[in-house]
Amino acid sequence: MTSKKPQVVIAGIGQTKVGELWDVSLRDLAVQAVMAARKDAGGLKPTAIYVGNTLAAAGSHQANLGALIAEYAGLIGAEGITVEAADASGAAALRMAYTAVLSGLVDVAIAVGVEKFTDVIGSQFDSLTAQMLDTDYEASAGLTPVSQAALLLQRYMYDNNVPREALAAFPLIAHANAVNNPNAMFRKAIKLETYLRAGMIADPINLFDVAPYADGAAAVLLTRADLLPPDMPNPLIEIVGASLIIDRLAIHDRKDPMAFTAASISAGNAMMQAGITLEEVDFFEYADITTLHAILSLEAIGAAPRGEGWRLGSNGCLALDGKLPVATLGGFKARGHPLGASGVYQVVEAVLQLRGQAGASQVKDAHIGMVQCLGGPASTAVTHVLKKVVNR
Amino acid sequence: MTSKKPQVVIAGIGQTKVGELWDVSLRDLAVQAVMAARKDAGGLKPTAIYVGNTLAAAGSHQANLGALIAEYAGLIGAEGITVEAADASGAAALRMAYTAVLSGLVDVAIAVGVEKFTDVIGSQFDSLTAQMLDTDYEASAGLTPVSQAALLLQRYMYDNNVPREALAAFPLIAHANAVNNPNAMFRKAIKLETYLRAGMIADPINLFDVAPYADGAAAVLLTRADLLPPDMPNPLIEIVGASLIIDRLAIHDRKDPMAFTAASISAGNAMMQAGITLEEVDFFEYADITTLHAILSLEAIGAAPRGEGWRLGSNGCLALDGKLPVATLGGFKARGHPLGASGVYQVVEAVLQLRGQAGASQVKDAHIGMVQCLGGPASTAVTHVLKKVVNR
Repeated sequence: MTSKKPQVVIAGIGQTKVGELWDVSLRDLAVQAVMAARKDAGGLKPTAIYVGNTLAAAGSHQANLGALIAEYAGLIGAEGITVEAADASGAAALRMAYTAVLSGLVDVAIAVGVEKFTDVIGSQFDSLTAQMLDTDYEASAGLTPVSQAALLLQRYMYDNNVPREALAAFPLIAHANAVNNPNAMFRKAIKLETYLRAGMIADPINLFDVAPYADGAAAVLLTRADLLPPDMPNPLIEIVGASLIIDRLAIHDRKDPMAFTAASISAGNAMMQAGITLEEVDFFEYADITTLHAILSLEAIGAAPRGEGWRLGSNGCLALDGKLPVATLGGFKARGHPLGASGVYQVVEAVLQLRGQAGASQVKDAHIGMVQCLGGPASTAVTHVLKKVVNR
Repeated sequence: MTSKKPQVVIAGIGQTKVGELWDVSLRDLAVQAVMAARKDAGGLKPTAIYVGNTLAAAGSHQANLGALIAEYAGLIGAEGITVEAADASGAAALRMAYTAVLSGLVDVAIAVGVEKFTDVIGSQFDSLTAQMLDTDYEASAGLTPVSQAALLLQRYMYDNNVPREALAAFPLIAHANAVNNPNAMFRKAIKLETYLRAGMIADPINLFDVAPYADGAAAVLLTRADLLPPDMPNPLIEIVGASLIIDRLAIHDRKDPMAFTAASISAGNAMMQAGITLEEVDFFEYADITTLHAILSLEAIGAAPRGEGWRLGSNGCLALDGKLPVATLGGFKARGHPLGASGVYQVVEAVLQLRGQAGASQVKDAHIGMVQCLGGPASTAVTHVLKKVVNR
């Protein structure tokens, strides 16, 4: 087992628009993303499909997505399963695809994240997303992911004397960057006044502090670089670091509820594997499920000391031309948050950046990107470090 | 990638009783199985946990099982996800654990299958299990997994002139073998008359032709043989073949609905990897979800020609002292079918056989066992070939 690790690369990406997609079914959404990724990879055919999804069984009465989607994507006879890890399901599916290619069992794998959230009827929203928490001890007491984040953010603001205005920076950056993303749900920049006028969802989280649950599908095609012809249609992006770490699910069980420990360990592992430090990361796609998640993610990876992550929003550091650009194509907040698909969207967007295909949102000279997806209050943290392959 | 594959072995197994376990929660069931497997492996600590589960999100309002169970099993900081592939979820979780150990990313992995079916209230049973079918085209028209199997069995009996009595052999064998399994749900042998008197569930499937949905958890601990000390408490069992294959989900989309094509390909792949033929298989743990599944599984692996699998029941071939013993500790029918856990139970039972720990149900001189789990009407098929490690 000391043999050199094979070079696992992303050879194709695909995505649908994010939004309320009433006219497209779960299976069609997933198939659109898979077909786009295959085309983007010059027609490569996967022999394994890992589906990241959070709510189809509970919300759309459809389990067994591996078989369902493989059939419609023309992949009969492949390996296929569904992977679930709350909001991080898509990232976990990618993790499984990476593991499979690395194992040598699978040559070409596809990870597709898909969510058809609007299949769910109004009042069920909260009870369905609450299943990502500890049902017996948290959800049954009325907690939802957003109200839980609100409690934590309340405490964070109290502990660190955070003025309300400082929170605005995070959604403002996300919305500004989404303007240039044709697949984003909200392509409109917002102003500080708009943010401050917005209604509260769960104090102190207002309408702009929480990513909108949405429909969407994204796919990433993985293979070993040595299997590919030299004339691939798009630049190859290598996965140079990957780590999935879980934390205690219930917040009250954690020694320190104000730190995203799993996110910290996962990012550390991934950077160590990649042989890099945070200074070498050209951009960071974080899981801004709420403004709390954005801030604690920055602290978790070491971009700011504990209790000071909120300061990064306003000092220019996170802008596209800053030291550590985030949410470069809108993040969860403005691209939209199609639960089990979001982790794959993040990677698709990172690949666009590294290929130099991010249009007006392009981060200059982007060579290394870090992508981190969180499930629930960082009960699951998945980090991938991606690098442009040069000199093939 | 031409380097020699590492030897991946099962070093520990654990299981709970199968049945209506009203007094144990989902998390406690899973933890009991995980702790038993760790103890059985001399206390080895996994760094990754793959949870096979089918209904927790929809039935128990609990997703995110990787984090939930890892915490209570003392595995904080590990990698953890939930894997779903209908009835084959547990087998798919094992597949992921195997892939992870083979990839070199994980040294010690645990696959745990868990189901708390009795969390679901009466009338919801059918609609929940129907989500394993194609919801838009099958379940929405009223089909359930059992009624679908009934339609296929009806056709099978018509095509092949199968007398009703011939079907009895399959549940009779399962019940006879379960008598010696302390964890089985039904430990009572049944007679032909009992079978013939049983009420119909969905003609021609009667009460004894269908495996009872149940609660239960089983776990398998995997690692590389070269990492283990020579004095392990139990004999090691190597995974010498593993294949997960999907078929079209909806029966009406299949060219030939009367053949379990994915089961056939999956078994062929696994035997090829193991370098064996069916003649060398000492016993076969099949997925006797219904009597139809039992019969078509035997045809799929090549134990009988098409249309003649039903004849194997009555000729002694499948008994513990026959040529190809099946359901050696009760199978799905008599051990019980805790959906996402069943695939792991099968492997736990196969390991007991190969270790020579199967008690009064021991298959003599068992060296190679084949285990096949099916999801839905073989829309997912997972086959593992297991072999006793000699001369360490």
